[in-house]
Amino acid sequence: MVADLSLSKTADFLKENDNYLILTHAHPDGDTIGSGFALKLILEALGKRAIVINPDEIPQKYSVAVSFEQKTDFDIKTIVAVDVADTKLLGSLEQEYKDRIDLCIDHHPSNIGYSKYRLLVPTAAAACEIFYSLAVELGVRIDQNIANAIYLGISTDTGCFKFANTTHFTHFVAAEIMKCGANVGEINRQMFETNSKERLALETAVIGAMEYYFDGSIAFATIPYDLLVSSGCNPDDIDGISSIPRTIKGVKIGITMRENEPGSFKFSVRTFEPFDASSICKRLGGGGHKAAAGCSFKGSAEDAKQKMLESAKKELFK
Amino acid sequence: MVADLSLSKTADFLKENDNYLILTHAHPDGDTIGSGFALKLILEALGKRAIVINPDEIPQKYSVAVSFEQKTDFDIKTIVAVDVADTKLLGSLEQEYKDRIDLCIDHHPSNIGYSKYRLLVPTAAAACEIFYSLAVELGVRIDQNIANAIYLGISTDTGCFKFANTTHFTHFVAAEIMKCGANVGEINRQMFETNSKERLALETAVIGAMEYYFDGSIAFATIPYDLLVSSGCNPDDIDGISSIPRTIKGVKIGITMRENEPGSFKFSVRTFEPFDASSICKRLGGGGHKAAAGCSFKGSAEDAKQKMLESAKKELFK
Repeated sequence: MVADLSLSKTADFLKENDNYLILTHAHPDGDTIGSGFALKLILEALGKRAIVINPDEIPQKYSVAVSFEQKTDFDIKTIVAVDVADTKLLGSLEQEYKDRIDLCIDHHPSNIGYSKYRLLVPTAAAACEIFYSLAVELGVRIDQNIANAIYLGISTDTGCFKFANTTHFTHFVAAEIMKCGANVGEINRQMFETNSKERLALETAVIGAMEYYFDGSIAFATIPYDLLVSSGCNPDDIDGISSIPRTIKGVKIGITMRENEPGSFKFSVRTFEPFDASSICKRLGGGGHKAAAGCSFKGSAEDAKQKMLESAKKELFK
Repeated sequence: MVADLSLSKTADFLKENDNYLILTHAHPDGDTIGSGFALKLILEALGKRAIVINPDEIPQKYSVAVSFEQKTDFDIKTIVAVDVADTKLLGSLEQEYKDRIDLCIDHHPSNIGYSKYRLLVPTAAAACEIFYSLAVELGVRIDQNIANAIYLGISTDTGCFKFANTTHFTHFVAAEIMKCGANVGEINRQMFETNSKERLALETAVIGAMEYYFDGSIAFATIPYDLLVSSGCNPDDIDGISSIPRTIKGVKIGITMRENEPGSFKFSVRTFEPFDASSICKRLGGGGHKAAAGCSFKGSAEDAKQKMLESAKKELFK
């Protein structure tokens, strides 16, 4: 049974312990990376030792905000997971660490409570918001490196302050860390204004083949396996494409069907109120949030598409 | 000769006068519209009468943030221009008003000083930031309508807090107006997450025909007249496309050439440091800012392209 801590009790925990291993989630995004390195830097400012590890390679682009260089010459005594809702999300590190996590700091309402202690702030748009609050609580001066790590998380988890999870506190934290020297211009440019040619080519192919159903209420994008391979895109490039169908005027439900292996499909579903993406995906064995959810399907492309459209139709006319 | 006012002297001016006509700039954007209606609402909160006018029709999409309904049953006594750097930008209203503007409130460093009084805040990312400060100075409670108008301007002028003009004060204002009930979710969705099918189709055509020069340092996009007409896009749709070439990895100078009429071209140039878009455009009789500039050309498409590429090459190898 997890013991939930307040912000000040979490600060006490961090002061009382040392030799930290910080775990971030697989397929790392800006928030888990920003959280991991923000915590590492905060702990170092307290005179502690800490390293951040990830089950996967950390994409090079995040180096615009954090330095990956680390000193590993100490024995681990304390294990903290950041922005990790479920031990399953530790990927290849799950077996080694799932029963040994001392503290989890997270913002996902779906956090399953796998750690001994937990600081869960479900109102935070990004886990990185919590590390701002922790630095303040601990009296750690937020220098440019900490500010950059925090900005990476809050900007990427909110689509640069565009998504509905953005709150006044998100903007307040952004204002405060900009005063501390966060290199916002470079980070924004790298995260939000850099497209690869491969990505743009894939995007145009996908948009060109977009299909519309039910008077344009549903937009359906398909990324066939052949196109995925020939595009030369990396997973990062592809992830962003899932958001396109819902952005089209009049579309209530945006669906992207990606053939990861021949006959193996992954769906990303995005909806606007009052439609529920997780209901649509649950009927196919998946899940997620109300506005964004996913599921998988094995079989023919035609079957996959029909099953998904049936489920989406049920939601549209519920 | 314009008399520059402080924030508090501007507040005094607004309290002392009445029956306001508020002028916004031609081809209105979110900041001039947000500024105009924020000022109108602030004046009304002070018990004054005010109307906002624009030389062009205000695009319907801005109604997500402001109500266009206005009472016009009074005689104009005081004329204020907002977010208008030069009387030329008043378009069809220039002749009627250019010598009669009592007060100008603006954030463009290039403001030419055409009004009797002026409040110029060149550090403001958006003119709407100034109206936040004015409301506070005047002791006007920022209600949801004022908050929406201010948010419209600061979000659109910063590309939703993405562009390099964003400061900690921009985020501070966003935090404060969200506390006052700004309808950020709906405004963001309308401004930043809604694409028309026409826009997407034009975008894919333009990206598909993108050309690269000097090892990918220059990306050159062309929108021929035929494509412009057949796309069915409105000017709003097209403006956003100018930002695409520079977003491509490795590109230092992004150029968009748009044929507005057969044989009549408009260039939009976007650069990254240390390259200067305004230098490139000046050689063709245009101008602008360091990172974004424009110019026009009459002649053949081939000539237009060659002249622009020559000028861009000079900047690239300066």
